[in-house]
Amino acid sequence: MSEAIAYLNGDYLPLAQTRVSVLDRGFLFADGIYEVAAVLDGRLIDNDAHLARMARSAGELEIALPLTLDEVAGVQAELVRRNGMESGLVYVQLTRGTEGGRDFLPGPETEPTLVMFVQHKALDDLPAARTGIRVKTIPDLRWARRDIKSTALLAQVLAKREAAAAGCQEAWMVEDGLVTEGASSTAFILTQDDVLVTRPDSHAVLPGCTGAAARALAAEQGLRLERRAFSVAEALAAKEAFITSASTFVVPVVEIDGQPVSDGKPGPVAGRLRALYIAFARG
Amino acid sequence: MSEAIAYLNGDYLPLAQTRVSVLDRGFLFADGIYEVAAVLDGRLIDNDAHLARMARSAGELEIALPLTLDEVAGVQAELVRRNGMESGLVYVQLTRGTEGGRDFLPGPETEPTLVMFVQHKALDDLPAARTGIRVKTIPDLRWARRDIKSTALLAQVLAKREAAAAGCQEAWMVEDGLVTEGASSTAFILTQDDVLVTRPDSHAVLPGCTGAAARALAAEQGLRLERRAFSVAEALAAKEAFITSASTFVVPVVEIDGQPVSDGKPGPVAGRLRALYIAFARG
Repeated sequence: MSEAIAYLNGDYLPLAQTRVSVLDRGFLFADGIYEVAAVLDGRLIDNDAHLARMARSAGELEIALPLTLDEVAGVQAELVRRNGMESGLVYVQLTRGTEGGRDFLPGPETEPTLVMFVQHKALDDLPAARTGIRVKTIPDLRWARRDIKSTALLAQVLAKREAAAAGCQEAWMVEDGLVTEGASSTAFILTQDDVLVTRPDSHAVLPGCTGAAARALAAEQGLRLERRAFSVAEALAAKEAFITSASTFVVPVVEIDGQPVSDGKPGPVAGRLRALYIAFARG
Repeated sequence: MSEAIAYLNGDYLPLAQTRVSVLDRGFLFADGIYEVAAVLDGRLIDNDAHLARMARSAGELEIALPLTLDEVAGVQAELVRRNGMESGLVYVQLTRGTEGGRDFLPGPETEPTLVMFVQHKALDDLPAARTGIRVKTIPDLRWARRDIKSTALLAQVLAKREAAAAGCQEAWMVEDGLVTEGASSTAFILTQDDVLVTRPDSHAVLPGCTGAAARALAAEQGLRLERRAFSVAEALAAKEAFITSASTFVVPVVEIDGQPVSDGKPGPVAGRLRALYIAFARG
């Protein structure tokens, strides 16, 4: 494969040479936000939703986007083209920028840093979609504004490490006895009564773009939806459980903390929603 | 002043050219820790305490320090020398390192990134030490492991911004009706009964190095100490309030949310502890 090309503040350059100052507030303070949008057949999927969420996250931190959302979309598309990417992810990160020194309080005139790069990945042929994944539940240690897609992701990194150490592919974070969400995904269950349950938007969770699309597709199929939190016990008693995210679409959860969900095999509703999502993405 | 010199993974180079890859986990995930140690008269202050805390933070995240603590101290001293710094701060940041792509789950063989730089600052002649500072209280939005000095500092940045917008120089973060700590400092009060009160170490607060030194100096002076949380109302009813940090030493708090502490003037105990700390630092 030819050299990966990234974008940084107006320039296209080799990813391996794309660097930021150690004084960038993204590096020093996690003072920034990000988005990940998927690409199938060389086209961005559901990108308007990701750009809208990026604008919201930036607005919550009062970081001014240096480009319009249309211009960001143009750079995303150009990166897909320059990297010859058919399937994968476009990553976008916006930080409050680089200053002359280090001070918690940002200067008024700091220029934001905008960086984007791609990751090739066969999104429509994930082994996990066929086998399902194992999930480990862990206490949700994160801050109180999880609706902002910030790069302050250390708790999620620790959660992923803990899950992996237990042989699991995702962590479900639990607070007050209820699942908030996955470390990098939205959590869903399908009850024995065929009700699809997932948390409502709040400061406690990130509003998932892929989760929203999956909900809309489920509703079109006549599935009943409930926006509420569920417990781990409820998930273990469910007919199905699954996660959604831009990088996995819809993936069944077959085991939680070593206990099987239903018969421990990927469920049909998750499989159907995955197929519908891919059709929606291609449509 | 001549060009600022920084350290990055074994090299000394101009700070303005000290850059890390956008794939560094410090930039992408705030997957790293830091320390700030003060310098007076060209010598590091209380540095062993900072290095011990750095080793603890790195250990909690299971990031292997690429240098021994003695070697880190050697680089710190070399930076002080190369930058001709008499008074100021040495900043040290350790991240889990740069990988070939972006994945929450770190690879097993990732080499950590170690970066250090200095900031000149007249620490023994801070205007705030004479005038005192105004504090704004805000809800503590941070994660549950504040004992780890991680670079996931977004909540602190937002707190500092909110405090500054209200004309204040520090934010005191409040949880369950009690002050946890400052956005970048430890909080103390002196009660009307002359008891010095500050929170005990726990996951809720960072164990302050300068705060620990101040407690030891206060004890030597025969001051009574209580390690417990206090409320904002208690702080407003106190004889004195002050903060401690490596970058401010001891600084009186004269106002909280627009209400004066005592007569709204810097108190004598804070002033005495500040003088004792500077003498200890020089001693």
